[in-house]
Amino acid sequence: MDFLKIAEKYRVVFFDAYGVLKSSSGILAGLQATLDGLQERGIEFYILSNDASRSPQEMAAAYSLHGIEQLGEERNISSGIMARDFLQAKVKQGKVAYLGKPNSAYYIESAGLEAVPISEIDIHQADGIKALVFLDDDGFDWYQDLNKALNLLLRKNMPAIVANSDHSYPASLDESAIAIGSLAEMVEKIVGKNFIFFGKPDSQIFSYGFELAKQNLKDLQKQDILMVGDTLTTDIIGGNKFGIDTMLVLSGNTLPQKARLQIKTTGIIPTHICTSIVS
Amino acid sequence: MDFLKIAEKYRVVFFDAYGVLKSSSGILAGLQATLDGLQERGIEFYILSNDASRSPQEMAAAYSLHGIEQLGEERNISSGIMARDFLQAKVKQGKVAYLGKPNSAYYIESAGLEAVPISEIDIHQADGIKALVFLDDDGFDWYQDLNKALNLLLRKNMPAIVANSDHSYPASLDESAIAIGSLAEMVEKIVGKNFIFFGKPDSQIFSYGFELAKQNLKDLQKQDILMVGDTLTTDIIGGNKFGIDTMLVLSGNTLPQKARLQIKTTGIIPTHICTSIVS
Amino acid sequence: MDFLKIAEKYRVVFFDAYGVLKSSSGILAGLQATLDGLQERGIEFYILSNDASRSPQEMAAAYSLHGIEQLGEERNISSGIMARDFLQAKVKQGKVAYLGKPNSAYYIESAGLEAVPISEIDIHQADGIKALVFLDDDGFDWYQDLNKALNLLLRKNMPAIVANSDHSYPASLDESAIAIGSLAEMVEKIVGKNFIFFGKPDSQIFSYGFELAKQNLKDLQKQDILMVGDTLTTDIIGGNKFGIDTMLVLSGNTLPQKARLQIKTTGIIPTHICTSIVS
Amino acid sequence: MDFLKIAEKYRVVFFDAYGVLKSSSGILAGLQATLDGLQERGIEFYILSNDASRSPQEMAAAYSLHGIEQLGEERNISSGIMARDFLQAKVKQGKVAYLGKPNSAYYIESAGLEAVPISEIDIHQADGIKALVFLDDDGFDWYQDLNKALNLLLRKNMPAIVANSDHSYPASLDESAIAIGSLAEMVEKIVGKNFIFFGKPDSQIFSYGFELAKQNLKDLQKQDILMVGDTLTTDIIGGNKFGIDTMLVLSGNTLPQKARLQIKTTGIIPTHICTSIVS
Repeated sequence: MDFLKIAEKYRVVFFDAYGVLKSSSGILAGLQATLDGLQERGIEFYILSNDASRSPQEMAAAYSLHGIEQLGEERNISSGIMARDFLQAKVKQGKVAYLGKPNSAYYIESAGLEAVPISEIDIHQADGIKALVFLDDDGFDWYQDLNKALNLLLRKNMPAIVANSDHSYPASLDESAIAIGSLAEMVEKIVGKNFIFFGKPDSQIFSYGFELAKQNLKDLQKQDILMVGDTLTTDIIGGNKFGIDTMLVLSGNTLPQKARLQIKTTGIIPTHICTSIVS
Repeated sequence: MDFLKIAEKYRVVFFDAYGVLKSSSGILAGLQATLDGLQERGIEFYILSNDASRSPQEMAAAYSLHGIEQLGEERNISSGIMARDFLQAKVKQGKVAYLGKPNSAYYIESAGLEAVPISEIDIHQADGIKALVFLDDDGFDWYQDLNKALNLLLRKNMPAIVANSDHSYPASLDESAIAIGSLAEMVEKIVGKNFIFFGKPDSQIFSYGFELAKQNLKDLQKQDILMVGDTLTTDIIGGNKFGIDTMLVLSGNTLPQKARLQIKTTGIIPTHICTSIVS
Repeated sequence: MDFLKIAEKYRVVFFDAYGVLKSSSGILAGLQATLDGLQERGIEFYILSNDASRSPQEMAAAYSLHGIEQLGEERNISSGIMARDFLQAKVKQGKVAYLGKPNSAYYIESAGLEAVPISEIDIHQADGIKALVFLDDDGFDWYQDLNKALNLLLRKNMPAIVANSDHSYPASLDESAIAIGSLAEMVEKIVGKNFIFFGKPDSQIFSYGFELAKQNLKDLQKQDILMVGDTLTTDIIGGNKFGIDTMLVLSGNTLPQKARLQIKTTGIIPTHICTSIVS
Repeated sequence: MDFLKIAEKYRVVFFDAYGVLKSSSGILAGLQATLDGLQERGIEFYILSNDASRSPQEMAAAYSLHGIEQLGEERNISSGIMARDFLQAKVKQGKVAYLGKPNSAYYIESAGLEAVPISEIDIHQADGIKALVFLDDDGFDWYQDLNKALNLLLRKNMPAIVANSDHSYPASLDESAIAIGSLAEMVEKIVGKNFIFFGKPDSQIFSYGFELAKQNLKDLQKQDILMVGDTLTTDIIGGNKFGIDTMLVLSGNTLPQKARLQIKTTGIIPTHICTSIVS
């Protein structure tokens, strides 16, 4: 069924990014037309993504590069933002060690904290380190730095924050990659302490999106919102639990020929199913 | 340190109920004075509890019975309310099977749905059943009804909702009891489908409390709120993750002589520690 | 392919019981002919089952009742026997509390210990209790006795033994039942201590069968043995890991139309697949 | 209490290696005297270790280098040997991909198979690859090669074997390191298939040691054997479950000041506790 036909029953659409708006080969052809269609119908839209690899500005710039100007930084709500808000509220000041690319350090620095790559930390002199953040799977030496993270947490009691709880992601059309959420869970199990994970299916990012949308639409209700995602275990169960309608698209993680079986075996039931948001 | 001395730095206090306001022997002596102290200082308070065993009215009545009138139903926010809102938004109409006491069916009925005890369900004629809710550990035959719940979920794809994710609770001064969250997790593992769990540490109940408090205090910020609880793995990590300050009290699950060790081994660090909310 | 055609390449066959030799409607028609066929070919056979609900004598009697005399008690190797050997070696003397039918107490009593149903235990006077054994899902009040087991283990440090690690079992042609392994895991998680689980896929029962078979066939090698089972996650992965050949039969837990998919999704690859051991 | 005083009640001693016979600073001073003491008393001994980083010959050579000749290769029973026997029995021929040091490939090659480092595998042409083995945390590029292992297993159904199930190990006096068992579990969770894990606490390595010891002592019983280890969750629970007596030594993973608490919190109860095997 046509995406816009379904979407026009709602006032706000939340999109997952990867597998919905873009793929390993880039922005979906036809995305511009779909966004125009939403705007013509007066429907607001936001991106809710599990991602802390780069800043909202950089996320927006990647769309802008392809001529799409409607997905500005204020619409790019990521699990990284949830982590940043946590750091701001709970850590307040000092040095924060991180695993990830230099770009991903944005989520520490924009909280007013000093971001230090774990590689530059001396675990024997870690008194000034206030927290450790798992941001992205890229940008560090897994062997050296995961072992260093383990020993830092074994020595000093500090919050360990995971800014993207995803276990894997599609690295190309036919390859998967281990995501930072998996690496963090592995270290958590060895350390034996409770890490703090951010990202769908947890409801916090949905609350954030809801609050943001309400700033423009004062009387917005949950039933006015549609979450569109390609992954049952994050987008769909998260949206369901938050109490909003959900649409599974078959342009990403969930292959068309497997959708029915996966819905049955997981028990996660989307409100709608649609091939893609583009026609 | 004195509870009120710490509390007066905040505008709103969220209390866990069991282990904080009451114990197996009843309401804490001195609770009235503490609530009066908060009101004198203009501090609002709400209860955030993992509980779907009875309605907010009944929860309020239990305090009222002891002369405490400031904890009315509108202040009793429970995981049951989260489940009710989910049912209302996502199931909408029809029959909903449940495990729990007749009293706990409130959370289905107040969503405008028909609550049917699992014992009355014929799993061979389950077409009309729209969802299954795990409400409370009491009020049903564990052997008969847990097996029936298992077979209902194996036969028909429907949402399984857990209205209280707690694993155990104190049944008396020196005895624990298996809570509905444990029973639900056991069935979930056998069925192999994803159940939807409500309750602390999940952030949804904190969001709900925050929104409610903002209705009276428009400019309320997260830093204005203190979560007071006796359990590190629900109250404290949940409050921390939501971005509010937390206080561990030693009047319930966390024994005074074990608090420091448990903070160290779990890595869950409360903002404050206080013997009790009464002096 | 014909079972005996495959079996004749081996010197010893290990059978799972339920789903292989019998079903909820009783002994498989044709079982006698298959066992005769094995004996004509000089092939030894044993039963390796996850079961502690009754003694080997009673297991043998159930076959004898249907005229099958070749499955005597000495051929009925069960997870209960593993638990009995543990109790004999490690507990040695005293009282042992249990959850299960009176019949299942055989595995405690034959270890020279005194079996006491958990319902008869006073947890306030539990000094004489040396261990707790989870034997069978039947024969006790789940609500009363699981809570009592929980509190016994919280009060006194003692070994907790699970004599059958299965999570569920087929209760009839179209119904499943929660098995004692699931109940034990639930209590283990709340108590936070390490229980000792017996049963396939753990290699201990395979070692036991191998040693027993070697008593008659001194030069027996692992490659001479075929494990026949209906469950990938117990019979087949257990046999594979122990280093013997495995045959998946489609007469029980693994339905014919789902076998290929389940092999692919679990990654558990049997050496052979056969519709049934009877033709 | 003196180790030899306890040991002389047994006919065979199984030693864990790391934390018992050696530490990060090398062989324990006094080990020679202890082994001499055992031999004077006619007590046999074997090493049962979770290790697939190098061959039994190399393990023996490391003791020999320090003048200890009684710990020859035939006494070095490792989880690697269990994996080798599995490969020999179940894979039989062809190429086997591995993660680990070149030295650890011994456990593939001595099974008569061709060992290929995962880095040399082209996952697009993986038809000839019969299995994947996780041998050791060292000797490969974690980022490149763990992602490659993930994609190999997602593309082709093959057994995934973990030759050492340990989660972490002491890298130096005050540092821990992530072990191959943790890395394998992380990949297993993403792939969603069942890997085959070898090593204590699983009983297979104890069975192997028992069989080996019986070759010299025909009438050896389980009660004649003492397992000596420094880790409750591998050495002690494994030995307990196998039905032999166990001794916890405080020279490794379990610190003297924490032993009692850890026994209580884990519920894993050693038969004996001893500071060290040397006096």
